[in-house]
Amino acid sequence: MIRRLTIIGVGLIGGSLARALREAGACEEVVGSSRSSGHLVRAAELGVIDRYDTDPARAVEGADMVMVAVPLGSMAQVFGAMAPGLAPDAVITDAGSAKVSVIEAARTAFGAVPARLVPGHPIAGTEQSGVEASYSTLFQRRRVILTPTPETDQDALSKVRAMWEHTGAEVVVMEPAHHDEVLAATSHLPHLLAYGLVDALARMEDRAEIFRYAAGGFRDFTRIASSDPVMWHDICLSNREAILDVLGRFQDDLDKLTVAIRGNDSAFIKEVFTRAKQARDRFTEMEDGIIPAE
Amino acid sequence: MIRRLTIIGVGLIGGSLARALREAGACEEVVGSSRSSGHLVRAAELGVIDRYDTDPARAVEGADMVMVAVPLGSMAQVFGAMAPGLAPDAVITDAGSAKVSVIEAARTAFGAVPARLVPGHPIAGTEQSGVEASYSTLFQRRRVILTPTPETDQDALSKVRAMWEHTGAEVVVMEPAHHDEVLAATSHLPHLLAYGLVDALARMEDRAEIFRYAAGGFRDFTRIASSDPVMWHDICLSNREAILDVLGRFQDDLDKLTVAIRGNDSAFIKEVFTRAKQARDRFTEMEDGIIPAE
Repeated sequence: MIRRLTIIGVGLIGGSLARALREAGACEEVVGSSRSSGHLVRAAELGVIDRYDTDPARAVEGADMVMVAVPLGSMAQVFGAMAPGLAPDAVITDAGSAKVSVIEAARTAFGAVPARLVPGHPIAGTEQSGVEASYSTLFQRRRVILTPTPETDQDALSKVRAMWEHTGAEVVVMEPAHHDEVLAATSHLPHLLAYGLVDALARMEDRAEIFRYAAGGFRDFTRIASSDPVMWHDICLSNREAILDVLGRFQDDLDKLTVAIRGNDSAFIKEVFTRAKQARDRFTEMEDGIIPAE
Repeated sequence: MIRRLTIIGVGLIGGSLARALREAGACEEVVGSSRSSGHLVRAAELGVIDRYDTDPARAVEGADMVMVAVPLGSMAQVFGAMAPGLAPDAVITDAGSAKVSVIEAARTAFGAVPARLVPGHPIAGTEQSGVEASYSTLFQRRRVILTPTPETDQDALSKVRAMWEHTGAEVVVMEPAHHDEVLAATSHLPHLLAYGLVDALARMEDRAEIFRYAAGGFRDFTRIASSDPVMWHDICLSNREAILDVLGRFQDDLDKLTVAIRGNDSAFIKEVFTRAKQARDRFTEMEDGIIPAE
């Protein structure tokens, strides 16, 4: 049981966590903090938080669990601002989409990586954002990746694991750098491609016609381009090296496909498409639980 | 009213057209043809067609409307094979995703572009294929683009337009080359990117983990990579020039984004992502009918 949970950044993720823990009876009090009191008033009206304080140091006073759910670019500043109010045994966790940069932000803000810091990343979300979009079942049957550091103590890790399990999530533990590589491939690169494609089309002369004749597949493919631009800007810069690596590989592959199309290389094109279809179908079956994960 | 509709290629599109026209009472008899009698037996069992003939020339005998719904790479061969059985006044149309290549295939097969040829493309479909996946409402409120040639006679165009309107589709007319450019951008390029991305991930060493931690956005983004590889191979080669053009532009944009990420160019990244989100949100509102199309 968490006595007092302070959530800094009460948006889709922070708000959904608060709702889930309340419904599970796993948390006595939720305190919100944010730069903008408007969001906090709304969160309190919605019953997501009990009270709030725009000063992070005051907001974390007496908290046994602190969730920092702010854009990656704000992590260092928030860690620094909350530090004076933190109880020595308070557990700190976060929901950032890249993990090495969060650990470095903590090292900078606290002077060393705190033993009570358990970096985390719930693999959940929609292209919506804000506390209005939050809901208590967001994490059910979703994976939450925790990336403890060599400094992280086991008790803190256990507490964060237990918190997420109360939301219905499946918790897995991973090396921070490995997390960043895997997410660069499965999440960050697709977002970049979706943003890049929509922007390319939006700048074409006949963009009105182009969007008029886009069909269902296009809508699905580009849904993630409706995600929050600032959040994704922060992710790109916070996970730069892993993203550049996977982006470079993808561009090489796209170059090869271009050469194959130009050169009428039927065998190569069929091979790529067939391998991709098989992998995609297998992924769907895994997700649907028809076949076990490899 | 169509007296006898012959559908060559009774798959998702051909099958759905037959079902829709039957339900609308807009067609007296449907004859199917295909290379494989297995599909035709199944189509007849499902009540999608009344009878079938694996010989295209015999299948089109006495038909007043012929729909060729085969992969683009098979168009020329099918046109040639059905030619001996065609009645002089039979209207010929197709459902290919690229139009200039279909017109060229007809010119080759018939010696000239027939006046009764009305090239067409229903902007509808799913990543499924085959007659089992067909359903009568597939075209409802979908756009069907017809691309008549200078040779096309108005009576044939009217008949094909009327046929599609019976399915609930909205018919628009466009230049063949312009169709190919628009579809290269909105459909062919996204499919290439989805196939390319899934294939790139599937060839990574830690592919099992990568697919395990892929979340909802990835599933939507890559859905189109489950499409039929042979059909999409044919589209790539049939609409090569338009695809290479839009692919080249996209690669240039991706290069610029790569440079911006490497160089920490916050302003550029935010600008691209913000412009894309605005265009995507506007597209969704247009599709949902909240704001009129530009």
